[in-house]
Amino acid sequence: MTLILNNQNVRDLLTMTDVIKVLEFAYKELAEGRGALRRRSDTIVTSDTAPDAIYALKSMDGVAPSLGVSAIRINSDIITHPQVGENIRRVKVPAAPGNRYTGLVLLFSTETGEPLAIFPDGEVQPMRVAGTSALAAKYLARDGARSVALIGTGWQAQAQLRAIDTVHEIADYRVYSTQKQNRDRFAMEWSEKLGTQIRPCDTAEEAVADADIVLLATNSIEHVAREAWLEPGMHVSSIKSPEISADVINRCDIAVCHVPHGRPTIEFGAGAALPETDGLDVDSLAQKIGLADMPTLADIVSGRRPGRTSEDQTTCFLNILGLGYQFAAVGSVLYKKAKEAGLGNEIATDWLTQIEVP
Amino acid sequence: MTLILNNQNVRDLLTMTDVIKVLEFAYKELAEGRGALRRRSDTIVTSDTAPDAIYALKSMDGVAPSLGVSAIRINSDIITHPQVGENIRRVKVPAAPGNRYTGLVLLFSTETGEPLAIFPDGEVQPMRVAGTSALAAKYLARDGARSVALIGTGWQAQAQLRAIDTVHEIADYRVYSTQKQNRDRFAMEWSEKLGTQIRPCDTAEEAVADADIVLLATNSIEHVAREAWLEPGMHVSSIKSPEISADVINRCDIAVCHVPHGRPTIEFGAGAALPETDGLDVDSLAQKIGLADMPTLADIVSGRRPGRTSEDQTTCFLNILGLGYQFAAVGSVLYKKAKEAGLGNEIATDWLTQIEVP
Repeated sequence: MTLILNNQNVRDLLTMTDVIKVLEFAYKELAEGRGALRRRSDTIVTSDTAPDAIYALKSMDGVAPSLGVSAIRINSDIITHPQVGENIRRVKVPAAPGNRYTGLVLLFSTETGEPLAIFPDGEVQPMRVAGTSALAAKYLARDGARSVALIGTGWQAQAQLRAIDTVHEIADYRVYSTQKQNRDRFAMEWSEKLGTQIRPCDTAEEAVADADIVLLATNSIEHVAREAWLEPGMHVSSIKSPEISADVINRCDIAVCHVPHGRPTIEFGAGAALPETDGLDVDSLAQKIGLADMPTLADIVSGRRPGRTSEDQTTCFLNILGLGYQFAAVGSVLYKKAKEAGLGNEIATDWLTQIEVP
Repeated sequence: MTLILNNQNVRDLLTMTDVIKVLEFAYKELAEGRGALRRRSDTIVTSDTAPDAIYALKSMDGVAPSLGVSAIRINSDIITHPQVGENIRRVKVPAAPGNRYTGLVLLFSTETGEPLAIFPDGEVQPMRVAGTSALAAKYLARDGARSVALIGTGWQAQAQLRAIDTVHEIADYRVYSTQKQNRDRFAMEWSEKLGTQIRPCDTAEEAVADADIVLLATNSIEHVAREAWLEPGMHVSSIKSPEISADVINRCDIAVCHVPHGRPTIEFGAGAALPETDGLDVDSLAQKIGLADMPTLADIVSGRRPGRTSEDQTTCFLNILGLGYQFAAVGSVLYKKAKEAGLGNEIATDWLTQIEVP
């Protein structure tokens, strides 16, 4: 039987500890070549579904044979880019029946080839991003790191917050976002959820002062981090390329990227385009910071290249562009736990396999 | 509801006429930019499932907005390369439960993003290859073409035979393959199925003599077509790069390729490799024949570049490397016919969509 899981199953089954543990194993495997991946690709055409919309079929895949799985993550999206204030936002349109989005992960067995599970990507998506940032912080933040400044209050920020205390014992949380009501609400809600006080700050500078770890998790299309923020021993991580400028990256003693070079493959139909601010234009950034020579997370986790070597170094982690490989790793745990718990819907694997040689 | 179709549904619903008609429309759309595609990628690691095996996760995608669909085709394969006689063969291992293979097409709506259907690729695969060859023959073979030489007797050859008489009125069929028993059996079986005589030939030369159309559909890793075969007005098509040498291609008056440049993206884990003869090494061929400047099928079908302009020209079509775009086009017809006929299993589309923004 092939398992069909939903986001509630993911919430019920998967912990941040699971995610970080399996990612740590998976990046070591990747560094040793016992894993392989194909980077993200987007195939984009114009769409009539909404004004100035595009339709994008996005996919990325990865194979983690030591975990017995491969995965392909697929997004089938109608996307608009409305101007909000002075910014252009990327907004997905929930055009599927019931105002829903279509993002799927297909998990396959590397031993038999069969489809083991299908699950939506919505719940796993921020967990693997935050788990990856936390994993980097485990290796790159200084020993005994205890204070965290969170910049941003969206769903990515929430996941970052949930992940970071699984790798360091955090006693001091601050949060900043541009809207006062957002940071106040976030601080109240998450102080209760974490059982520890989160301090909302009126400025980013107040939040990051003396912080051991700065987690950028914004939707900003402008630079957020400032050179003046950097203090000896600080670790800064970013989930989106515009958040952190080349100047800040170059000021850090150790800068680590998620993947060696970042630009996804994009194929356009006639008339289809992305705004320049869509966060995909990493080429110019890559040139400014020498991304090609930068150690990757796999290098650091596996010990192939050095991470932090002293308490005073400033470090940063550029968690830009996700990998299907992350979905394979996390999917392997999710599948195992779902089978053990008897959760999820089942369909006959024969429905998804064949006797015909393709 | 999302339809889950099987190969029997495909056999019951889809005709070669359907396939060729929708492909003709789709290639025109592609030429006009009203379509987009991502080429095939393979992510490959070593496998313990069989001796000297590899595991390969292969995918390709395409978006055909005028048909309202996009598709991604995914293969999750254990592959061996045994030596058979002097040749190295590519053999997939049916390692999924029940000795089955895993090859899937996911069809999405470009209007809503939702998954419309999932079906195995086994039955559609040779139909879209043969339909594409037939479509090329419609434009490139001479008017009134009536004789066909088929080289090969496998499942691809069967599909080529089924497709060609939908575009030309064929009255004279010949078949050749290296094994006498294969060509005799094939001729007997398909003479009955087509209701017209197919002549098994003792040599390839005998089969191709005076033929208007030569269809190469072999599993050969060596050159099959000879320069001496070419006669004025002949059309030759190939489904595999080694079948037809650069010399033969360069001798043709008009050579048309399926896609502009052919090499798939291949990512390897440590120790994983493909034999050189795996049919993927099109780079050297591409250089020898100027593949980059060659008209594509979309150019010819749309009239953007000239095809045959006289009865005496020799033409060839290189139907190498498939496209996910073909599965989108054919999938749109299959889905429509399945809905009309009420065929297939259904699962709730909500199982494959989500309220969470991914």
